[in-house]
Amino acid sequence: MPAAPRPLITLLTDFGTRDAYVASMKGVILSLNPTAQLVDLSHEVPPQDILAGAFILAEAAAYFPPGTIHLGVVDPGVGSHRRALAARCCGHYWVGPDNGLFHLAFSRALDLALVSLENPAYFRPQVSATFHGRDIFAPVAAHLSLGVDLDRCGPRITDPVSLNFPNPGFSPEAIRGEIVYVDRFGNLVTNLRVDEVTSRLAELGWRLKAGPLTLRGLARTYADAAPGEFLALEGSHGFVEIACAMDSAAHRLQAGAGLAVEISRG
Amino acid sequence: MPAAPRPLITLLTDFGTRDAYVASMKGVILSLNPTAQLVDLSHEVPPQDILAGAFILAEAAAYFPPGTIHLGVVDPGVGSHRRALAARCCGHYWVGPDNGLFHLAFSRALDLALVSLENPAYFRPQVSATFHGRDIFAPVAAHLSLGVDLDRCGPRITDPVSLNFPNPGFSPEAIRGEIVYVDRFGNLVTNLRVDEVTSRLAELGWRLKAGPLTLRGLARTYADAAPGEFLALEGSHGFVEIACAMDSAAHRLQAGAGLAVEISRG
Amino acid sequence: MPAAPRPLITLLTDFGTRDAYVASMKGVILSLNPTAQLVDLSHEVPPQDILAGAFILAEAAAYFPPGTIHLGVVDPGVGSHRRALAARCCGHYWVGPDNGLFHLAFSRALDLALVSLENPAYFRPQVSATFHGRDIFAPVAAHLSLGVDLDRCGPRITDPVSLNFPNPGFSPEAIRGEIVYVDRFGNLVTNLRVDEVTSRLAELGWRLKAGPLTLRGLARTYADAAPGEFLALEGSHGFVEIACAMDSAAHRLQAGAGLAVEISRG
Repeated sequence: MPAAPRPLITLLTDFGTRDAYVASMKGVILSLNPTAQLVDLSHEVPPQDILAGAFILAEAAAYFPPGTIHLGVVDPGVGSHRRALAARCCGHYWVGPDNGLFHLAFSRALDLALVSLENPAYFRPQVSATFHGRDIFAPVAAHLSLGVDLDRCGPRITDPVSLNFPNPGFSPEAIRGEIVYVDRFGNLVTNLRVDEVTSRLAELGWRLKAGPLTLRGLARTYADAAPGEFLALEGSHGFVEIACAMDSAAHRLQAGAGLAVEISRG
Repeated sequence: MPAAPRPLITLLTDFGTRDAYVASMKGVILSLNPTAQLVDLSHEVPPQDILAGAFILAEAAAYFPPGTIHLGVVDPGVGSHRRALAARCCGHYWVGPDNGLFHLAFSRALDLALVSLENPAYFRPQVSATFHGRDIFAPVAAHLSLGVDLDRCGPRITDPVSLNFPNPGFSPEAIRGEIVYVDRFGNLVTNLRVDEVTSRLAELGWRLKAGPLTLRGLARTYADAAPGEFLALEGSHGFVEIACAMDSAAHRLQAGAGLAVEISRG
Repeated sequence: MPAAPRPLITLLTDFGTRDAYVASMKGVILSLNPTAQLVDLSHEVPPQDILAGAFILAEAAAYFPPGTIHLGVVDPGVGSHRRALAARCCGHYWVGPDNGLFHLAFSRALDLALVSLENPAYFRPQVSATFHGRDIFAPVAAHLSLGVDLDRCGPRITDPVSLNFPNPGFSPEAIRGEIVYVDRFGNLVTNLRVDEVTSRLAELGWRLKAGPLTLRGLARTYADAAPGEFLALEGSHGFVEIACAMDSAAHRLQAGAGLAVEISRG
């Protein structure tokens, strides 16, 4: 007889993996639901960087099966008046602070149901002021994985906090964006989706400017450039990305999130 | 039919996650018990820092369900005459070197049963002199997860090695302690339990001194201070902690483990 | 009733654990086979360092049970003409790029069956040019874990790409090798297997030279030397290793991969 599938809970935090924080959350979940299957999305979100967390979460979560529960804790406002929330969206569940962390994951959704976590029956008996990941979010995720209905966790809300995500600027001649994420290889990820750009500008005629760089058109893969050469390409997340073959574009350009990018014809 | 719970084994080491060491231990466990569920507590314990390992282990293990097996390997004396041990304590099992690593986890226990690992039937057939994590501790943990009785692993002992953990000094006017752990956010964790301190000094009248800092009373949460301000608060582990809102207290004070802390009235 | 064992899939990459890359692969696998059990071998392979990846993979994989599927992605040539492969070898399965990453794992095998991954039925519907880990290797591993026959994935091949792994040089008086790997503790691992060396030179009469160091014979364990002393010993992987007790040999010698090592009589 094959093994029964087990409810899947992913975890994303800015806690790192050295301290006891992530493991404590896992212990809380497994104490409530020993059949849960835990998968780390990332615990290396730069501390308190909600935008980077939102980017990683939206990107990774898209590949998980329906019913997956995503627990996200990048939470500089823990203990203040920020709300705690749980949501059903895109066939997945989401649990974490109401501070924009889920904004990108929710942004393309037609089926968003959101509640404010206010029912202490699904919290740990003692809720600390500094660690809601362990005391509120982990036990709520565990209860959802046991089949508790979302609406038992608290009242519906419709006004989640938005992320300060820079929107591209479109004009007939150019599209203006910026770098929003730098990955481990030093690739510079823009906020410009390749499909949006190519529907406005013919791909063949592109010119991308970023700092001292001017790049023409989209390369297909990193191996299209000689070592040390810069290239623009579609990253695996679907955004335009600036890379340096066999090197770190971020390091070579001394650039990171915030760098302006402009794509124009010609 | 729901999935059956699986025996839970946690792992804590100072091996890091780059090399093959941790994965080798997991392979050994899963070869003996393919139904085991493995959870990493931490593999980023500073190399050979038994005190930091003991702190993380005691903190994280507290949240795991009864019957969990904790495998801890911070083992500078591997291959020397230090004993290897397994224990049943607080409803959990513990396996690792006898060097103080479990001292904090055992310190509040009323039900400690300890054995010296001497039965090679539960080791790997070849035991190297340099990697008991793989050759002794991992297979013993796997056998315990299969239901092997603790007492079959070796003779009972009653004198485990103690940790050199600094005890607080109490006088009628003041409590003296020190920083024992620095977390990923640069929070400075003292050896002073909040409940011990508040039972001796009225909370409202506290004054904490550490290096150049004087802080009054306990903040409730990080969000109680303006960015860049220092505060003392109860960390999620129950110890008094010195933090700097939205910044690293360790970096700002250039301080770490060993820094003296004094709490007094007034 | 005990839990049923679940198919075991290990993952080794140079992606790090901060970005969404590894989690995306895990989501793809669990979407296809929710009963798969995932174990990380390492995601901290130095970027694009196929030799280090091959070393970690061969070392760790040896401890896993028969039937384990090893997914390895260190893939500087992604999107170019390098082949993708899957293999059955040593009772395990292996999936990844054909660039030498599996060379050490395959080197001692008598039972190697290799195919070139060419059947898109087992790929994701859209295959990107930059992320075959997610779009080809992860789904192929998942399908193998579901029982798909290796030969359905593509045609047999017999000429996998070799690794540029330095072979030891043997003469009657000396054995010449080099450092091929540096672990997290700064131990310097050579390409000289202890059993090969001792079958040629009497152990008692060894003298190892590496840079400014001359070491005589093999120590048994790190604890055999005083803190700060250098020693040669058999690492847990079976290779001669140069260590510095309670310190980093790599840092002390300012040495790494490529350093020449010579072992001679006397």
